[in-house]
Amino acid sequence: MRNFTIALDAMGGDFGPHISLPASSKSLLLHPNLYITIVGDKQIISPLLSQYQLLEHPRIKFMHAPETISMEDDPVSVLRHRSQSSMLVALQLVASGGADACVSAGNTGALMLLAKHTLKTLEGISRPALVSALPNNRGGHSYLMDLGANLQCGCDTLFNFALMGSVLCEKVEQLSSPSVSLLNVGRETNKGNDTIKHCANLLANTEYINYIGYIEANELFDGRADVVVTDGFSGNIALKSYEGMGRVFLAQLQKAMDATWYSRFLGKLLNPIIKNQLKHLHPDLYNGASLIGLRGIVVKSHGSANVEAFTYAIEQAIKEIQWQIPACISARLESVLAERDCLSHE
Amino acid sequence: MRNFTIALDAMGGDFGPHISLPASSKSLLLHPNLYITIVGDKQIISPLLSQYQLLEHPRIKFMHAPETISMEDDPVSVLRHRSQSSMLVALQLVASGGADACVSAGNTGALMLLAKHTLKTLEGISRPALVSALPNNRGGHSYLMDLGANLQCGCDTLFNFALMGSVLCEKVEQLSSPSVSLLNVGRETNKGNDTIKHCANLLANTEYINYIGYIEANELFDGRADVVVTDGFSGNIALKSYEGMGRVFLAQLQKAMDATWYSRFLGKLLNPIIKNQLKHLHPDLYNGASLIGLRGIVVKSHGSANVEAFTYAIEQAIKEIQWQIPACISARLESVLAERDCLSHE
Repeated sequence: MRNFTIALDAMGGDFGPHISLPASSKSLLLHPNLYITIVGDKQIISPLLSQYQLLEHPRIKFMHAPETISMEDDPVSVLRHRSQSSMLVALQLVASGGADACVSAGNTGALMLLAKHTLKTLEGISRPALVSALPNNRGGHSYLMDLGANLQCGCDTLFNFALMGSVLCEKVEQLSSPSVSLLNVGRETNKGNDTIKHCANLLANTEYINYIGYIEANELFDGRADVVVTDGFSGNIALKSYEGMGRVFLAQLQKAMDATWYSRFLGKLLNPIIKNQLKHLHPDLYNGASLIGLRGIVVKSHGSANVEAFTYAIEQAIKEIQWQIPACISARLESVLAERDCLSHE
Repeated sequence: MRNFTIALDAMGGDFGPHISLPASSKSLLLHPNLYITIVGDKQIISPLLSQYQLLEHPRIKFMHAPETISMEDDPVSVLRHRSQSSMLVALQLVASGGADACVSAGNTGALMLLAKHTLKTLEGISRPALVSALPNNRGGHSYLMDLGANLQCGCDTLFNFALMGSVLCEKVEQLSSPSVSLLNVGRETNKGNDTIKHCANLLANTEYINYIGYIEANELFDGRADVVVTDGFSGNIALKSYEGMGRVFLAQLQKAMDATWYSRFLGKLLNPIIKNQLKHLHPDLYNGASLIGLRGIVVKSHGSANVEAFTYAIEQAIKEIQWQIPACISARLESVLAERDCLSHE
């Protein structure tokens, strides 16, 4: 792989550079072709660069951006009044060709809006989608989208999500024809609202998507569908229910192991085996949601990510650079538009 | 408690009378004041009544209904063409005063529509809601609604759900002022769509609901909110994600325990303790979703419920009879309508 550069919004997330800098350090060790441009407030970043052994690193650049966007900032006001934020400067680097991708743990709404304005969407796409690969019970990943960037979605939007998710999954997971499903309240064709039913019809009638029908939320993790499409409200709820339930179970498991001296003893012996088995379900391993549909690569890390989790977000950006995801999506969109033109002329 | 009668749609669910009859048997043993009217097809039910020791039980009645509604039947066509179904006959028993509640494991959409037409909704309620009590991490229950009966909901509908859920939770859980929350993609007041924001405003301004703000889906099970309100599409997804993740987790835990002879040995010793700790999270224990907002009590069991789970659905109906939930909801609705009248005259 050729050399490539990631622009890092170092200020975003709950812990800012205290996570993004050590994660950069880790990623640089793993990828000898990786260059990172750290974007952030000089006064805060400078002393930390030496602390994390990045001060004179040959593959690290630093770019000063005096403003920071908080998790509470309103995206629209950020767009209007915060022209020197680390998030925007990092995105501008991608837009100008100075970087191949942007990674940020900052405010999702702001990232979405700034990315759309700075990078622009691909031909045929009105708004980017937020997608994440979740571990499934078959040991693979299911791509769930949208995760909250588009709360309400019309039929065409859902169709485009399906198409984009299909390309992303095909490339990153190296699957020849990923199965695509719509999230619904039942499997039967008469279930759901009109938008979903209409979209199901569109998906079933295009040769570019391997549409397998509706999926219910309890099947999300059984691996039947490689790509699961829904609006941002429902996707956000599915993702967070999943995380919430995982935490409930772990807490109860810990309680069981802490119950008596006997269970504590057994738990100590069994814990490493359980941890090893459950590790592929750990949220850290699927940190890194992609904003797709843009003319550039943008990856969003959880705001509360730790160093390991943030490293996975950088990993996700690297995979998308490797597979040139925006170009692949753009090519697929063109084919579908051509298919539609053919149909309308028949 | 006085004597009371439950009308049982014996034919509904994946296993029909093979589950509903033994569950009836169990419930009759537990509740000496309980009478059950079994509604179903004579030819199928008659031989089973003796098999499950119900043939000459002094508190069992049988009512013949030759038609059965399948899980695939379209609710609207059922309403028009299936006037002798076990589900409808059971509901009519409640409407006529011949029973205090109806329990069915049948087709949810059909139950919803038939219940609405047979029992009618309370003054001020246009459609009933489906609500279930989920176990939370504090050892209590959080009431989630709507679970799929109303896919899209306007602001007033969500407000009414909050009010009805609050009454149900207050009575059944014996809480003086249950906390009520709206499910959203973030806690901040600027999050969500206009319907949710408007509803949040209404909820914050009524003295009859202890509204505590938005809740995210990962907080569903931490017990912060006693009642969580959302539209039927999102509620269905939250509930099923929860169930799906639970299954993933248990499967992985089992895999860990089956990994080696050593883990099998430790697992065997620890398993009873883990099972005991996790048992309050078992779906069987929260089987029994209530259709509320009707002029009568209707409880829906999971279609795939086993005998124990179906017994819990009957238990739920008994609690609602005991607390006269429809009358309590009706009274609270009246107070709120009066409050609104006062406000509009100020």
